[in-house]
Amino acid sequence: MSSLIATSGAPSPPLRALAFNCSLKPAQRPSSTGAMLGDVRDALAAHGVETDIVHAAAHNILPGTRSDEGPGDDWPALRARVMAADIVVIGSPIWIGQPSSIAKRVLERMDAFIAETGDDGRMPSYGKVGAVAVVGNEDGAHHVGGEIYQALNDLGFSLAPNAMAYWVGAARSAEEYRELKPVPPSTMDATQLMVRNAVHLARLLQQSAYPPKA
Amino acid sequence: MSSLIATSGAPSPPLRALAFNCSLKPAQRPSSTGAMLGDVRDALAAHGVETDIVHAAAHNILPGTRSDEGPGDDWPALRARVMAADIVVIGSPIWIGQPSSIAKRVLERMDAFIAETGDDGRMPSYGKVGAVAVVGNEDGAHHVGGEIYQALNDLGFSLAPNAMAYWVGAARSAEEYRELKPVPPSTMDATQLMVRNAVHLARLLQQSAYPPKA
Amino acid sequence: MSSLIATSGAPSPPLRALAFNCSLKPAQRPSSTGAMLGDVRDALAAHGVETDIVHAAAHNILPGTRSDEGPGDDWPALRARVMAADIVVIGSPIWIGQPSSIAKRVLERMDAFIAETGDDGRMPSYGKVGAVAVVGNEDGAHHVGGEIYQALNDLGFSLAPNAMAYWVGAARSAEEYRELKPVPPSTMDATQLMVRNAVHLARLLQQSAYPPKA
Amino acid sequence: MSSLIATSGAPSPPLRALAFNCSLKPAQRPSSTGAMLGDVRDALAAHGVETDIVHAAAHNILPGTRSDEGPGDDWPALRARVMAADIVVIGSPIWIGQPSSIAKRVLERMDAFIAETGDDGRMPSYGKVGAVAVVGNEDGAHHVGGEIYQALNDLGFSLAPNAMAYWVGAARSAEEYRELKPVPPSTMDATQLMVRNAVHLARLLQQSAYPPKA
Repeated sequence: MSSLIATSGAPSPPLRALAFNCSLKPAQRPSSTGAMLGDVRDALAAHGVETDIVHAAAHNILPGTRSDEGPGDDWPALRARVMAADIVVIGSPIWIGQPSSIAKRVLERMDAFIAETGDDGRMPSYGKVGAVAVVGNEDGAHHVGGEIYQALNDLGFSLAPNAMAYWVGAARSAEEYRELKPVPPSTMDATQLMVRNAVHLARLLQQSAYPPKA
Repeated sequence: MSSLIATSGAPSPPLRALAFNCSLKPAQRPSSTGAMLGDVRDALAAHGVETDIVHAAAHNILPGTRSDEGPGDDWPALRARVMAADIVVIGSPIWIGQPSSIAKRVLERMDAFIAETGDDGRMPSYGKVGAVAVVGNEDGAHHVGGEIYQALNDLGFSLAPNAMAYWVGAARSAEEYRELKPVPPSTMDATQLMVRNAVHLARLLQQSAYPPKA
Repeated sequence: MSSLIATSGAPSPPLRALAFNCSLKPAQRPSSTGAMLGDVRDALAAHGVETDIVHAAAHNILPGTRSDEGPGDDWPALRARVMAADIVVIGSPIWIGQPSSIAKRVLERMDAFIAETGDDGRMPSYGKVGAVAVVGNEDGAHHVGGEIYQALNDLGFSLAPNAMAYWVGAARSAEEYRELKPVPPSTMDATQLMVRNAVHLARLLQQSAYPPKA
Repeated sequence: MSSLIATSGAPSPPLRALAFNCSLKPAQRPSSTGAMLGDVRDALAAHGVETDIVHAAAHNILPGTRSDEGPGDDWPALRARVMAADIVVIGSPIWIGQPSSIAKRVLERMDAFIAETGDDGRMPSYGKVGAVAVVGNEDGAHHVGGEIYQALNDLGFSLAPNAMAYWVGAARSAEEYRELKPVPPSTMDATQLMVRNAVHLARLLQQSAYPPKA
């Protein structure tokens, strides 16, 4: 077969990223998840991708699995920002070894994409790339990543390899990512790798969408 | 930017798939995982993709995390078949709600890809698409999928949306997928969706590899 | 050694249970999680145990991991009800194969027990028995159970064998537990088994507490 | 009610523990899982409990979910040692953030307990206490614990609070538990806590079994 991608002289539009900071803390308090997402944003910027960061706890995201849960629901406006993004990053702290309740809430609201699958078999999220950023005092990043990967995959997102930026301290440590100076080079490497792969995949999907159901 | 993909008159080589049947049963006994992988193979064939199916329990895959664990190890030959594939499907039954020990063994052996990361920051598996096929009497497919997604993602595979073909019966059911006549249309739909997306992503990555570390 | 339990003529006080309904729905809408918790309550009543059911979504449980997150926080009153219970049941629906955000919120608030560990090495929750009740249209009960078991275990609860009452339909089913008439006998058996074991363990721990740190 | 436990002048028999070392390495190579199980054994000995340690990779545990998978199967002899134990510890390394394939194999073979449930509704494992010991270079202990808790709970074991002894290094660390000198006090504390609670629960269950189905 020949190339899937019709080449033309016109440049592709720039990619856009949206990152949810799913810290349990109010926006005004410093969060390690926020520090990690700052590093992710910088890495994305180096690829020419602008990142919109949402501090989820500052919004009233009602419980439910529809795209609009009625009066007072801040999700419809956030959903519009998801729709405008090519790359969606779920940033979560680790509590009890698991993703935060706020990360879970954001994912639940995207469950509506399943009901919104088109007649062509594609969800509104098809073509978007998912990624994860996780920090904790100790232990749990890979599991938090795994839970979020599974949810994002079910919800129509694609995942490039090594789709997680993360840091955790040693067992029973109380270290905080936001206080690490400098961030360990191996952590910066993982962040840059995650971003490099996500950007590549997002560009491919921008140029060549998943096919509709025959 | 212009297209990532250099178009030429030459056709792309056909895609190849490898599926591991990680049933606990010997190859000669009928397995529901095998029945599901047969459906996956048929769906891949409709896209012109040939599938090589490995009954993992019929091979002596030694414990360890290196690409060759020494005398008697069947993994090096299987690894060569992984390397030849564009799409790798992990087919697992559900036991105690979790992936089989044999699925875990196959994934562990691919852990060697991490140590084999090139100076350019890419694992030998980069460019391959992962997928999952799961069957069980009851309950557990999404978790089995989630565990395998996380492992495949760590190990360098890309995941298209809805990367799992699956079937389970109702709570505490003893039904067997291989005895369902016909397979429920919603299950066939999920299988075809998984395959359609995986094939699209594999073609994109065949034409445009993840970039090396700068 | 002789018996751990000092026998006396005085009867033990009756056991009390608290169940959280972690449905995403408002309290006034019928929920399958609520139907399952009704069955759990009936089974507990047959053992002389009274059950207090909390519809968590009807309370303003603020995000955080302290026992009191300040003005407007309904958790301190709920925490007092947890403290009064011998058996704590987390009832969760399954969304995207995972526990609900509300179940996660309830567990996060009990994370404070870790910081409240006494000088004797025991958390405020020591001596309490945890249990799980899960319902979903399809697939995911064992994983939801597993996530909640791990959290409850970290948070100081004990688990009797088969600590989950559950029901799910077959793959991609849209059946609702609350509409099943009758509930399948195998589901009722599992519910009664969960309750029988939890009650036995709670009585043992009521009579003989975990020992303090030497 | 009065005490569940009939007191008598006769001392209870001593408790016995069985620990599976589910390292991927041959028995003759030093393993961090083995080092952790040595610490668990010492902590159990301080409570008068003798521990039988099985290096699972040194046995031919055939794939399957029956108590005897036929000629060459070493499980029947290991199963007898499980049956003789009051406390069963699953010791697993972390690979790709998950339990080892060998830990999974051991758990799968205990799946037979479900089919062996007596007419009284009790599995052969009822009355036994489960526990977990996990080590890894980095990240994953709580998830490995969670997977094993869920399996052990399904398979009839009881879990005391804080049922996991564990150690992991910081993100992307290559430290080995067996080379830590000394083991961090917080890790020794967790190991002793796990053991203290498991022993207490095992003594209670030795004196007062879960009741049969009415």
